[in-house]
Amino acid sequence: MEIHSKPASESYTVMNELVLPNDTNPLHNLMGGRLLHLMDIAAAISAQRHSNHVVVTASVDNVSFKHPVKLGDVITLKAKVTRAFHTSMEVRIEVWTENIPSGSKVKSNEAYYTFVALDNDGKPANVPNLITETEEEKQLYETAQFRRELRLILAGKMKAENATGIKAILFPEI
Amino acid sequence: MEIHSKPASESYTVMNELVLPNDTNPLHNLMGGRLLHLMDIAAAISAQRHSNHVVVTASVDNVSFKHPVKLGDVITLKAKVTRAFHTSMEVRIEVWTENIPSGSKVKSNEAYYTFVALDNDGKPANVPNLITETEEEKQLYETAQFRRELRLILAGKMKAENATGIKAILFPEI
Amino acid sequence: MEIHSKPASESYTVMNELVLPNDTNPLHNLMGGRLLHLMDIAAAISAQRHSNHVVVTASVDNVSFKHPVKLGDVITLKAKVTRAFHTSMEVRIEVWTENIPSGSKVKSNEAYYTFVALDNDGKPANVPNLITETEEEKQLYETAQFRRELRLILAGKMKAENATGIKAILFPEI
Amino acid sequence: MEIHSKPASESYTVMNELVLPNDTNPLHNLMGGRLLHLMDIAAAISAQRHSNHVVVTASVDNVSFKHPVKLGDVITLKAKVTRAFHTSMEVRIEVWTENIPSGSKVKSNEAYYTFVALDNDGKPANVPNLITETEEEKQLYETAQFRRELRLILAGKMKAENATGIKAILFPEI
Amino acid sequence: MEIHSKPASESYTVMNELVLPNDTNPLHNLMGGRLLHLMDIAAAISAQRHSNHVVVTASVDNVSFKHPVKLGDVITLKAKVTRAFHTSMEVRIEVWTENIPSGSKVKSNEAYYTFVALDNDGKPANVPNLITETEEEKQLYETAQFRRELRLILAGKMKAENATGIKAILFPEI
Amino acid sequence: MEIHSKPASESYTVMNELVLPNDTNPLHNLMGGRLLHLMDIAAAISAQRHSNHVVVTASVDNVSFKHPVKLGDVITLKAKVTRAFHTSMEVRIEVWTENIPSGSKVKSNEAYYTFVALDNDGKPANVPNLITETEEEKQLYETAQFRRELRLILAGKMKAENATGIKAILFPEI
Repeated sequence: MEIHSKPASESYTVMNELVLPNDTNPLHNLMGGRLLHLMDIAAAISAQRHSNHVVVTASVDNVSFKHPVKLGDVITLKAKVTRAFHTSMEVRIEVWTENIPSGSKVKSNEAYYTFVALDNDGKPANVPNLITETEEEKQLYETAQFRRELRLILAGKMKAENATGIKAILFPEI
Repeated sequence: MEIHSKPASESYTVMNELVLPNDTNPLHNLMGGRLLHLMDIAAAISAQRHSNHVVVTASVDNVSFKHPVKLGDVITLKAKVTRAFHTSMEVRIEVWTENIPSGSKVKSNEAYYTFVALDNDGKPANVPNLITETEEEKQLYETAQFRRELRLILAGKMKAENATGIKAILFPEI
Repeated sequence: MEIHSKPASESYTVMNELVLPNDTNPLHNLMGGRLLHLMDIAAAISAQRHSNHVVVTASVDNVSFKHPVKLGDVITLKAKVTRAFHTSMEVRIEVWTENIPSGSKVKSNEAYYTFVALDNDGKPANVPNLITETEEEKQLYETAQFRRELRLILAGKMKAENATGIKAILFPEI
Repeated sequence: MEIHSKPASESYTVMNELVLPNDTNPLHNLMGGRLLHLMDIAAAISAQRHSNHVVVTASVDNVSFKHPVKLGDVITLKAKVTRAFHTSMEVRIEVWTENIPSGSKVKSNEAYYTFVALDNDGKPANVPNLITETEEEKQLYETAQFRRELRLILAGKMKAENATGIKAILFPEI
Repeated sequence: MEIHSKPASESYTVMNELVLPNDTNPLHNLMGGRLLHLMDIAAAISAQRHSNHVVVTASVDNVSFKHPVKLGDVITLKAKVTRAFHTSMEVRIEVWTENIPSGSKVKSNEAYYTFVALDNDGKPANVPNLITETEEEKQLYETAQFRRELRLILAGKMKAENATGIKAILFPEI
Repeated sequence: MEIHSKPASESYTVMNELVLPNDTNPLHNLMGGRLLHLMDIAAAISAQRHSNHVVVTASVDNVSFKHPVKLGDVITLKAKVTRAFHTSMEVRIEVWTENIPSGSKVKSNEAYYTFVALDNDGKPANVPNLITETEEEKQLYETAQFRRELRLILAGKMKAENATGIKAILFPEI
């Protein structure tokens, strides 16, 4: 028997990481790929907590890198499941960058990763439904459908004209 | 004096990597974040070859992971600059996964990363224009504008109704 | 001008980490030294947040490892400064181990690390005093003196008979 | 059949390591946690040589870090089993730090780690008794009892008033 | 049934790698051992592609390091099987070093590694014969016999006076 | 002023390393390139101890891998300078492999690496002469000339007919 629904808050996962020399380029900036790697780990832990299964990454949505992150900075990653589908989950990750000498802390990135839960034979496994409690959780749950349509279009699995969710949001006047 | 234009082919970069134990989850599948990290390195080398500058990642577009990659597989990454803007470049990366015992090789991913070139003071630096030679290069150059609009919308920096490129492609009937 | 006192809660640091293959021995148990390394990073981030300086580890107190941690488990580290001295700080770290398939989560370790804050020339730097708010914070602040005496005795820098704090706690009847 | 006793000298293990960039903080000092990790590996090899079993770390005693270790320094770790109990062993590790340009070499740390031997099913396994040969080995063997009591008290498994060994050493006048 | 012969070109493998901080010594030069490690991986992928088996390194021939490689440089490794024996293969690797700001690219190393193919039980497995197509491939195939004799002499497995190939090449006048 | 000669014994360096998951291929054998990397580090420490300078690898001689090394094995590397030239040194490394459960220990490899000493500007620096004390040290010192000629021939820097040392050893009858 499996649990059929779990609150989003149970999947909440925080990681703090120190930017070490091997994470940086010759100008001592954190390399984007290293941050994508850390975001994937934080998000995967969150999805594993919701599903109680090993998970594999199914997709990452567009991520932009606005603020340079420097050697010695502390990066804080916060991940939480936003919606569960049959065997997959969407996770939102927020990243903050903190400079120790100045104490300044800015939000540097946010992203959505999706994961598929696997059983011990490596087959997709059902995951519990998500219970939303806060206003923000409810809103992220609603908009997950829109992001899913966009992923399907970008992956060539859905035609744009059938993506009624996107159409309504991008071009409400049509 | 700087070179004002360079052919796309000069930025072409190939990486072959062996999937090692620490790249995998307990089911021996390559973790998605590790692949995103490798894609970033391959794409950054490509952008550095075009610009002759250190580069930092500005964004990664939606990436989906369709085929599981296993411990011991060989992954091949191929990166090439598709378009240069003032101080930034878009790079396309294709990933193939090869199973050694069976010899099978499948295309598992493709993605677009963008980079900003930096001078030694960490300020954005101008990059050469891109010369396209093959049909594929010309087509990727053209469609780069569409992908750029989509990035700007998703990053909240452009209103959807002004994104004429996307509109024309997604909803040609309008 | 520097801030002269900061609440303990501002130094609070949480890390979640996935136990990866290279962290384990041939029986797939997390190696103790790897955990000590992660605890040091979590505690150092906490001390850096309190002091706004780079810090170096000055000592770690006795740590015992009671529960085996396995490949694929999630470890949660929680660190908070317990007391600030002139240029040094004591940090308490608690470690929980979570098994994903079963969802069980047990407290596996706790430890005290001390750090010295350094300025840009590598000299010890003054750190803000610690403001305690909760009952637990107040108690840890009080008992920090006892742990400090024990460290000094074990490091051969204080004679046991002068360690009135330890004497009173270990042998109250004397 | 198993060997019932082995000399301490057979467990003697030396490691030399170069301090690499990723082992250091932004001031180019070796991070304490990285050293604790290396000490654990050296000590574990020593315990494996004595027991001919895979071992897991059971505890580490108080370690203090007195001398800064810098990028490019060579660290020498020397480990030897000091006493064997039924299924566990205490190992002493000494650490020297060597600066290449000046040729100076100082003893920077010493510590005691304990390990439990495991059989292939992960159950504790009996280990050979320890044969001491030198004066130093005999003295470390004797004082191991005192350190064990201290560990038990600190882990809350023994009451201080029953720790006759500690009492006799810390407060001989009582 | 196995394929009995494959062209050399099918084993061709290219790797591009960025020199990262942890690959370098305190003067920011790539450490030779790290390059030997990367050459081994590139060559092993090449041998696995020819044999469709897991391979283990059997030997590396003399390698000299003429040009310093610096932090931030891009190294390009090109590997191709030069000859197949019963269960082993010789692979030639060429290494180029590219400096990004100047765009200069020099050939820095070349080497020969040999590998043994293993089946799933870890026993040596037969490998396909090599089909040579270009002039360079034919020449490398011919001279492989000479290099093999030299390896056997250096490993103490053949007497120099029986090494007719070496004699003829080193001292043609005799 | 610099020291003009130092005994070989002062450069003696021992490393013990545990074979960890990420060092191995899918059959759990240590990868040859990883061992070459460890040998380079051990030999570089030895050359740094003799020269009191940062060193860079100049060459590695032919290395053969006879015994498979497995996950969990302990490898012991022993390095000592065999001869010093003006600004370079030859170092001999021996490798033993130890299986913990059986206690068996075999010599698995030996190799010669050469290094160049560098001053703080990255220019070659003079190194002390080597004082040999044991019979083995004296013999290795003598034969270093032969190995040097072989390296020069293999690197295309010396003609075989001028290599009187090699000729005399390989073909004494001529």
